[in-house]
Amino acid sequence: MSTGKRRVCFPITSRAYYGRSQLLIRKLHSHPGIDLQLMLGGSILLDKYSQHIADDIEKGGFSISTSYFNVIEGGNHVAMAKTACLTALEFTNGFHSIDPDIVVICGDRFEQLAIAMAAAYLNKTIAHIEGGDVTGSIDESVRHAITKLAHIHFVTNADAERRVQAMGEDPRYVFNTGSLDLEVASQVRIALTNEQVNSHGVGHSVDITRPFLMVIQHPVTTEADNRAHLETTMRAIAAIDMPAIWFWPNADAGTGEMSESIRHFREHHAAITDKIRFITNVPVDEFIGLLRLTACLVGNSSAGIKECSYFGTPVVDIGARQQGRLHGEHVTHAPYDADAIARAIRAQLHHGVYPSSSVYYKPDASQTIVDLLSGVELYTQKRFCDPQLTS
Amino acid sequence: MSTGKRRVCFPITSRAYYGRSQLLIRKLHSHPGIDLQLMLGGSILLDKYSQHIADDIEKGGFSISTSYFNVIEGGNHVAMAKTACLTALEFTNGFHSIDPDIVVICGDRFEQLAIAMAAAYLNKTIAHIEGGDVTGSIDESVRHAITKLAHIHFVTNADAERRVQAMGEDPRYVFNTGSLDLEVASQVRIALTNEQVNSHGVGHSVDITRPFLMVIQHPVTTEADNRAHLETTMRAIAAIDMPAIWFWPNADAGTGEMSESIRHFREHHAAITDKIRFITNVPVDEFIGLLRLTACLVGNSSAGIKECSYFGTPVVDIGARQQGRLHGEHVTHAPYDADAIARAIRAQLHHGVYPSSSVYYKPDASQTIVDLLSGVELYTQKRFCDPQLTS
Amino acid sequence: MSTGKRRVCFPITSRAYYGRSQLLIRKLHSHPGIDLQLMLGGSILLDKYSQHIADDIEKGGFSISTSYFNVIEGGNHVAMAKTACLTALEFTNGFHSIDPDIVVICGDRFEQLAIAMAAAYLNKTIAHIEGGDVTGSIDESVRHAITKLAHIHFVTNADAERRVQAMGEDPRYVFNTGSLDLEVASQVRIALTNEQVNSHGVGHSVDITRPFLMVIQHPVTTEADNRAHLETTMRAIAAIDMPAIWFWPNADAGTGEMSESIRHFREHHAAITDKIRFITNVPVDEFIGLLRLTACLVGNSSAGIKECSYFGTPVVDIGARQQGRLHGEHVTHAPYDADAIARAIRAQLHHGVYPSSSVYYKPDASQTIVDLLSGVELYTQKRFCDPQLTS
Amino acid sequence: MSTGKRRVCFPITSRAYYGRSQLLIRKLHSHPGIDLQLMLGGSILLDKYSQHIADDIEKGGFSISTSYFNVIEGGNHVAMAKTACLTALEFTNGFHSIDPDIVVICGDRFEQLAIAMAAAYLNKTIAHIEGGDVTGSIDESVRHAITKLAHIHFVTNADAERRVQAMGEDPRYVFNTGSLDLEVASQVRIALTNEQVNSHGVGHSVDITRPFLMVIQHPVTTEADNRAHLETTMRAIAAIDMPAIWFWPNADAGTGEMSESIRHFREHHAAITDKIRFITNVPVDEFIGLLRLTACLVGNSSAGIKECSYFGTPVVDIGARQQGRLHGEHVTHAPYDADAIARAIRAQLHHGVYPSSSVYYKPDASQTIVDLLSGVELYTQKRFCDPQLTS
Repeated sequence: MSTGKRRVCFPITSRAYYGRSQLLIRKLHSHPGIDLQLMLGGSILLDKYSQHIADDIEKGGFSISTSYFNVIEGGNHVAMAKTACLTALEFTNGFHSIDPDIVVICGDRFEQLAIAMAAAYLNKTIAHIEGGDVTGSIDESVRHAITKLAHIHFVTNADAERRVQAMGEDPRYVFNTGSLDLEVASQVRIALTNEQVNSHGVGHSVDITRPFLMVIQHPVTTEADNRAHLETTMRAIAAIDMPAIWFWPNADAGTGEMSESIRHFREHHAAITDKIRFITNVPVDEFIGLLRLTACLVGNSSAGIKECSYFGTPVVDIGARQQGRLHGEHVTHAPYDADAIARAIRAQLHHGVYPSSSVYYKPDASQTIVDLLSGVELYTQKRFCDPQLTS
Repeated sequence: MSTGKRRVCFPITSRAYYGRSQLLIRKLHSHPGIDLQLMLGGSILLDKYSQHIADDIEKGGFSISTSYFNVIEGGNHVAMAKTACLTALEFTNGFHSIDPDIVVICGDRFEQLAIAMAAAYLNKTIAHIEGGDVTGSIDESVRHAITKLAHIHFVTNADAERRVQAMGEDPRYVFNTGSLDLEVASQVRIALTNEQVNSHGVGHSVDITRPFLMVIQHPVTTEADNRAHLETTMRAIAAIDMPAIWFWPNADAGTGEMSESIRHFREHHAAITDKIRFITNVPVDEFIGLLRLTACLVGNSSAGIKECSYFGTPVVDIGARQQGRLHGEHVTHAPYDADAIARAIRAQLHHGVYPSSSVYYKPDASQTIVDLLSGVELYTQKRFCDPQLTS
Repeated sequence: MSTGKRRVCFPITSRAYYGRSQLLIRKLHSHPGIDLQLMLGGSILLDKYSQHIADDIEKGGFSISTSYFNVIEGGNHVAMAKTACLTALEFTNGFHSIDPDIVVICGDRFEQLAIAMAAAYLNKTIAHIEGGDVTGSIDESVRHAITKLAHIHFVTNADAERRVQAMGEDPRYVFNTGSLDLEVASQVRIALTNEQVNSHGVGHSVDITRPFLMVIQHPVTTEADNRAHLETTMRAIAAIDMPAIWFWPNADAGTGEMSESIRHFREHHAAITDKIRFITNVPVDEFIGLLRLTACLVGNSSAGIKECSYFGTPVVDIGARQQGRLHGEHVTHAPYDADAIARAIRAQLHHGVYPSSSVYYKPDASQTIVDLLSGVELYTQKRFCDPQLTS
Repeated sequence: MSTGKRRVCFPITSRAYYGRSQLLIRKLHSHPGIDLQLMLGGSILLDKYSQHIADDIEKGGFSISTSYFNVIEGGNHVAMAKTACLTALEFTNGFHSIDPDIVVICGDRFEQLAIAMAAAYLNKTIAHIEGGDVTGSIDESVRHAITKLAHIHFVTNADAERRVQAMGEDPRYVFNTGSLDLEVASQVRIALTNEQVNSHGVGHSVDITRPFLMVIQHPVTTEADNRAHLETTMRAIAAIDMPAIWFWPNADAGTGEMSESIRHFREHHAAITDKIRFITNVPVDEFIGLLRLTACLVGNSSAGIKECSYFGTPVVDIGARQQGRLHGEHVTHAPYDADAIARAIRAQLHHGVYPSSSVYYKPDASQTIVDLLSGVELYTQKRFCDPQLTS
């Protein structure tokens, strides 16, 4: 506690956040003026999603300050809300115990708002990564509410920077650093093999040396028809008749019914799924390798908006989850309609790879963030900066 | 559940919110198109703060959907954060059970953000009363974070209206209705007697037919010196040598040490407190009667900014808690300095009553809100309204 | 609240308890002097275990007082302990709200002790069904701890009666009513078809008109090798070369690794599982039909000790879970050793059906319990009855 | 974690437990084969009860593994039950983190059962101090339920030893070590001064060189009339007309109304309380000094049964809380009746000091316990020992 170093606490609650934060975590860990405090909770501790990560963390030499099992089963909104509350309760104890100077909150997952609330009530300085974007789902509310609790803002694009300032945040603490995801993606050098890919998951053996689709469709927590929407996409994919790798949805309200639906298709409509491989999780570098290789990414993952912008991978973005988000020309939107989705996929397959975009990319995003976290003057009492006075 | 009425849920967690919402609650209760669902939690259930309220509610014929004991003892930040988390966990169960169409969130207390978060995760439409103000303390963060979770905004003044829109809220759902507190205050007709006032609390018998001070100083959760700040005010009051009614601080992080300090003064420095009456709680109408009668209100209560603006009661506002808030000319600010506070009180006593201000007052605030709650079209998926496009 | 009826609260937290309590619940529901209060929590709300039950309850005309999602994911001891704590916290709110006169606690599952603790702290009279048995696993501790919190004891056999009294319980409140499970089992009249059975689960199509095995192996929470033990049984079953119906393990500490193991076998060692059908759940009457039909029940389910005693179905009981429990001659024990298990199965197949035993069976168990719950004098203050004075 | 030492975890949740465990904690701390893990929670963290203890612990050189604020305000049964649940949830995280070999559970407070449950579910070996006694209140249920979860039993008297064995505990793990409280009491050498005593609390200045009464009356959680019972005792004390030191009740269901009642008497019936000093807390050695000095201890504290047996201090034990407990001849029982209580006090004052009793006292209790905790073979799977087979 009395090392004289700045204590930077990094709560990790999902494999996605761990993946995109790898470079940042390593640099925080090795910075001489920073004590890195990793706290784990939520779905990252449930091995069906993230068996590789604990090993990774161990190998990286990072010590875990504390781990909390706090995902409440149900896959519905009640379970999601209670998971957030329990997470915040437990992280309060953790923060009280390790007494960080800064708590780093990533993105817009529901439990991150709860953790940010706990940190704010303990008078911690909060740094938020990826504020200011506009999307659909409950993420939209979560992201901006975190912004209003946070003190230091690392945004990934110019639109986001403008919005965070419009919301009354102090312009001296809003930094457009570019996206960590893209920095990680830009550094991955992996030569994927069929053997590697097909060692994960179940179903069809996909030959990645030939064109294949990739599907990632998460529940939209503010919508009631997640099961139907998943089935719509399933039918569109079946219509394309190209091998596909389908990633299991995130643990969120709506996951239960989507998982159920996938299992139902596999067991009772084998014909529809017979060219699909279902995978719950792969190491981050393999995931990025697949994003670069796939002929088209289909679904509603933010990877379509972000990582794919760097690679120029064609994307068919379905529904409201990423709606309104700044994106490059490699993204085509489609509604929840099997024909429209299939048409959009065919058009993207016909177009092929796009040029790389710099909408979300800046070099050295992680180094910029580490430098700021170690050097910026900390404060806790927030005050609305009236935009007309600051612009 | 199938009455065809709009179910409006009103979570009440403090006597202050109950007090200011009385007219609104009565009108919601008697509206033919609304099923009012009262939920109680937090400090309102702890009788040392609010013994009169349960009776009031009973007398009003309102039925309580559910009551949760969830205040964690400690009077520090950890207890405050965990109280918020436990509150949200329990209100999630309550919301799941009574399935409201709208959840009404009041003001900026820490547990109200937690409740708003739970409601948002259950896809409820959230109506927020009193967003957009600027103050100090953690309330500043809490208030704006609630705004970013809420769908319908009832603000109390033009400044607030502008800020809520700047934060990206849909202008069609931002309504400047004026303040409920002032509407309640404007309707109170009470002829207070010495007997009434001195039946509450302990200490000096105050003669309210003669000039007296009134002190309300709450903890500022983002500051470490709440005990010292209370003692500073205590010394200033002693220096004025006028009888005073001192209200016990709210249950918040910092309350523990402030209560301890008051007890210490009473038992070990009787001379300083011998003209002071200490009161934890009075019925709302008597409280308002005292605000109108007192020669000067001292401390950091929002009642100084708001109710007193209507009555023109002189106010000495101390420290950062109300800092930056729009106020009338009846308010003088003072730093945490006994001499400065005493000087400011003397100046206000010399000046006497101010003219009534309309900064926060509009007639029929509660009726305006009820009409909107019963009629406005509800939505759940939020989306940032870029201000430059909407203005 | 003022019906003059005795309010009897029945917390149901697993499909097994619901199954065995069907007759009791129906009789409580229709008793003119009893208000039945059903509360649901735990795994019964997670549809992967119990999709049929909500429908059943609806059809039975029972109203659910409240439902709590409170299973914390992880399948390990931490998750199990925290699930119990969260369950008790939420049931405390539920009890406070519906104010039962009696809380009925069933059996020895971990969350039932937590619920009993909550009920005891609220000064409710607790009735416990199935105390006094001796088994292995954490159930052994849970069961007797519940006994020491309970006021009325419904035991299923003479050994249990003696033990409950030895523990200091008042003999006037210890009743040997026989087992509810066996009463349910004795009344099931079902002609199972192959079509019915094979509509559940995945894997091999079992022909139930020919001899088949049935496997139910739950985790033993006090042991570390649940995965290895499951694999041992898997190898024994494979060695017998007879079709088998394998039931998914209960949600308990250790379930995670066991489920993982089953999935691993199915996907990577198909030969071993190719005569096995894996089923998570069937309606209670079909389950009992299978217990009567199977050539031999293998594993560590209490159904082997109890229901099978009535039918005379041969049982191979593995390991420590049911160790020490009173049982009929139809049960053979086997250690965690594939050869020993296979040998024991072969011996039981050679022996065939046993005569029905009355160790656990008395007619009208449910009616006896309802009569006592409605008529017995209630008390809350417990006092150790020194056995030497009372016998 | 890999020191090769046995990790012994000691959860402390009240000042009373800390007081009586002082010698034990010191010996555990200095034992070369033991890593002592202190965990704090519950009322011990709330300074109104225990400001001296944190300092003590610091001075003793003990490090605190973790501290949890988890007392839910309300002073009623709901708050008590939820406090227990929250405590157990948080201690589960703590146990998971520090991974003790043995968890030491003290006595019979409600939160200790909850902690024992959590420890049992994590497969920890549980050592229980002070099982087997018979008393009133919910403590009676709590104590025996803990026995049925515990593996090693340190009882304080022969009656308790017999009862713990009757309940099916393994006689090889039941040890009559005598009472820790009495060992602490026997070693206290303090020359109390009037100045010391009157530096605590509020009210009358008691002259301890002259006869004075001492009152400790805790709520009985299974009774509804705690306020009335307190008032009865208050009237009896007033009738004796001797100075009295009155200790504030424990934090338990019922405390709220009792505290309220004391405050009411002080403020509105000053005559009745004008010879009484009200004290919330004194250091343990001063407390013991007072027990030795007082002319008569009145109320329902276990200190009357135990510590006073060693000193021969006359005791009037009121009501059901200690009912049935083994006690020496220095104790007289009285019902909730002011006249009967006053009569009993007068008789005890007339009798004066009794000879020291050895009912609860053995020399070196703490050393005996430490030796066993460091050396006894540990086990986790419990099994009912049928008494007829083991005696």
